[in-house]
Amino acid sequence: MEEFDFGMVGLGVMGRNLLLNMADHGFSVAGLDLDPEKAESLEKEASEKHTIKGTTQAEEFVKLIKKPRAIMLLVPAGKPVDSAIDSLLPFLEEGDIVVDGGNSFFPDTDRRVKELEQKGGIHFFGMGISGGEKGARFGPSMMPGGNESAYERLRPIFEAIAAKVNNEPCVTYLGRGSAGNYVKMVHNGIEYAIMQLIAETYDFLKRGYGISTDKIQKLFEDWNNSELSSFLVEITADILKQADEKTGKGLLLDYISDTAKAKGTGKWTSQDAMNIQAPVPSIDSAVVMRNISKYKEQRVAASKSLTWEAPAENVEEAQLFAEIKDAFYFCMISIYAQGLAQLTIASEEYDYGLNLEEVAKIWRGGCIIRAAALEDFRQAYQKDAALPNILLDETIGKSMVEKQTAARAIVKKVIDKGIPAAVFTSALAYFDAFRSETLPTNLIQAQRDFFGAHRYERTDVEGIFHTEWNS
Amino acid sequence: MEEFDFGMVGLGVMGRNLLLNMADHGFSVAGLDLDPEKAESLEKEASEKHTIKGTTQAEEFVKLIKKPRAIMLLVPAGKPVDSAIDSLLPFLEEGDIVVDGGNSFFPDTDRRVKELEQKGGIHFFGMGISGGEKGARFGPSMMPGGNESAYERLRPIFEAIAAKVNNEPCVTYLGRGSAGNYVKMVHNGIEYAIMQLIAETYDFLKRGYGISTDKIQKLFEDWNNSELSSFLVEITADILKQADEKTGKGLLLDYISDTAKAKGTGKWTSQDAMNIQAPVPSIDSAVVMRNISKYKEQRVAASKSLTWEAPAENVEEAQLFAEIKDAFYFCMISIYAQGLAQLTIASEEYDYGLNLEEVAKIWRGGCIIRAAALEDFRQAYQKDAALPNILLDETIGKSMVEKQTAARAIVKKVIDKGIPAAVFTSALAYFDAFRSETLPTNLIQAQRDFFGAHRYERTDVEGIFHTEWNS
Repeated sequence: MEEFDFGMVGLGVMGRNLLLNMADHGFSVAGLDLDPEKAESLEKEASEKHTIKGTTQAEEFVKLIKKPRAIMLLVPAGKPVDSAIDSLLPFLEEGDIVVDGGNSFFPDTDRRVKELEQKGGIHFFGMGISGGEKGARFGPSMMPGGNESAYERLRPIFEAIAAKVNNEPCVTYLGRGSAGNYVKMVHNGIEYAIMQLIAETYDFLKRGYGISTDKIQKLFEDWNNSELSSFLVEITADILKQADEKTGKGLLLDYISDTAKAKGTGKWTSQDAMNIQAPVPSIDSAVVMRNISKYKEQRVAASKSLTWEAPAENVEEAQLFAEIKDAFYFCMISIYAQGLAQLTIASEEYDYGLNLEEVAKIWRGGCIIRAAALEDFRQAYQKDAALPNILLDETIGKSMVEKQTAARAIVKKVIDKGIPAAVFTSALAYFDAFRSETLPTNLIQAQRDFFGAHRYERTDVEGIFHTEWNS
Repeated sequence: MEEFDFGMVGLGVMGRNLLLNMADHGFSVAGLDLDPEKAESLEKEASEKHTIKGTTQAEEFVKLIKKPRAIMLLVPAGKPVDSAIDSLLPFLEEGDIVVDGGNSFFPDTDRRVKELEQKGGIHFFGMGISGGEKGARFGPSMMPGGNESAYERLRPIFEAIAAKVNNEPCVTYLGRGSAGNYVKMVHNGIEYAIMQLIAETYDFLKRGYGISTDKIQKLFEDWNNSELSSFLVEITADILKQADEKTGKGLLLDYISDTAKAKGTGKWTSQDAMNIQAPVPSIDSAVVMRNISKYKEQRVAASKSLTWEAPAENVEEAQLFAEIKDAFYFCMISIYAQGLAQLTIASEEYDYGLNLEEVAKIWRGGCIIRAAALEDFRQAYQKDAALPNILLDETIGKSMVEKQTAARAIVKKVIDKGIPAAVFTSALAYFDAFRSETLPTNLIQAQRDFFGAHRYERTDVEGIFHTEWNS
């Protein structure tokens, strides 16, 4: 019986690509799938230098793997994960490791960590993987959380297959329990917000100013060679020049429905942020805008009755392009600031022990939200590991102060044009709230005490007070 | 043994006040509380014409009530509700009714409805009550949901004690299962957003333009005699003139801490809105702003580094006041539109069978979000019971179109001043998104297909498509 380095349960595109990636790096790998075709096609895709075996039998599969075993699940989140675990469990032994590589809801991971620890000392990891199919094949960003010493068994394999930036792998041990799933969830929340920021930018230029798609395409291409360089900006430039093959006429984008779908991780980010009182208004706004896109019929009706005549405006294209670039940068940083601060708050709340420098480091490559700016964030956390918000970093703060003029100018133009730009405006509102020494929430506290006797704190003396208000 | 009309479990201020309210209207009432002091003090507060009895014994209490029994629980949400139910259950009989009058999380109510139906045909109601202590004593707004025919036993009592507007009681049967809790939850979400809108208005005038609190107080007082007339505007005018008794110097408001607290119903509204894809960006923003108020230390630090010099501006006070009034109206209507649309979507999703005209009707009086505008909403739903969004009503739509100019002007001033006004901006963004025939979400669909093969729909042909994108 051979001793394989790693096992994979679930041989869909992602699982197969990750295994092939491992095999490229000299690891011997085994795959399990109940579908015999998938198990076979794994072996067919292997080249001569690969050591790969596919099977449909759980027992055979588990026994192929070197002890302590390292097995990853790449099956849909939810019940399929529990079923996969149950099918392996009879054959696993103490010290074995099971890594869930899907987008599992983080409390499920915490439950599974406990259950598998109790059922014979098996280490369960939740690991977010980003980068899509191509990333899985040639270098993803991976976010594992679980037992720290058990991670040593996984480390050489994961570091070998991960994306690299300046020879540093985009994977690291992140923290306890569901830390990995949580970091990936917030990654996706940030992803939602930046995608919406890009969509708003496109809408603003096209609908607001009638700029041609061709010019907007070139703009994104230019941006990708600047401080805005990032995967999402890069693929937007690609998308904006993709011809429609079905009709042979015009751009594919113009034929795509404007009703957006979502798989829920952005929503989870917003919902849990509210649970732990982490403000992420731009992620919330991105979730909202996908949802509002659903009500097409109502929007069409409203477009006829709720009209607005935008005031005439003389604008120099060059100045507009310079402003929107700085505004984009400003809002993008605000979005990352919100998401990274959520991780800091979550790490405290859930006792993850996250190292934010490491998070920024592994997001620099391989993942969907990779961007040149991540290196700046990494350096900010390197200077101050306890930095509660990257907006408080001197370098980042300075560039935000500099670029806020452009952000304010663009948001005012958006308002004049009557174009919805919820992520632009919320990113700016977050900045302005964050830099407010005093907020008017004292009035909210007064109202709550007035009508509900909810009491309030004072600024001059300690304690909790109630007033019989005059009315 | 006497036969009492109604029983109350939990004799805190709210429970006691509701019972006294019922007794005022000639109903005989019994109260149960494990605390003998509370049971006694209920009887002490009764006048001669009242028929009131307090007890600490569950069995005695239940047997006092006329069959089918009508019993309300006013205990804290969560486990206390289940404990109260368990203490009554041995003595209840088929057809009896238990009404939970607290702010229970709506899925708990659905569970209890089922459990009590199975345990002997007992009808469980979830009922939101709004109006605070005073409302409970002299006329609250009540939002009951549960079994429609069982409601007939409760109707005469609830209609007698409810607030009245034009002789119509602010209570009605709302719908099945947790309909009542859900309506109250969204009521509270709207409440959060309007409170934040008021706080932003105050901040904008005071911090942005240095307008004296005295003038702002008079403004709110004036508004309360206009189309903006509402409970929250009214109490704000009261709050803005309340002197500080502790120091004997200045206004109480200026001594109240700006770190806001919350009890969670606004958060639930946002979180469930995301589950059912109902866009409520202004409620989300209100939740966010309470949360950001928590990070006082970071805000103080940021206020020093993230500075902004507002451009000089000559503004006529009279014009500013006229603009902010129209902008306030515009945003307030946008907030109600979001919340009411959430109810329409929830009614479909959870099969509540809500009648939105009835909801608007019972919100006109007694509750925290009562406002003159509710009568307009009621009329809109009267004209068209299937209206999916009040912004599509002709009259409301026209006044929004008219007032949008002021809203845009104020939001631009907010941006220039560097004052955070997340509810103002999100209320406007909602309006602009809602009236967009086409949104740029097609670009988001393209991105999702590009990096995740998530597929997309087309505008010209039916089906779901994937493209191998060029990069």
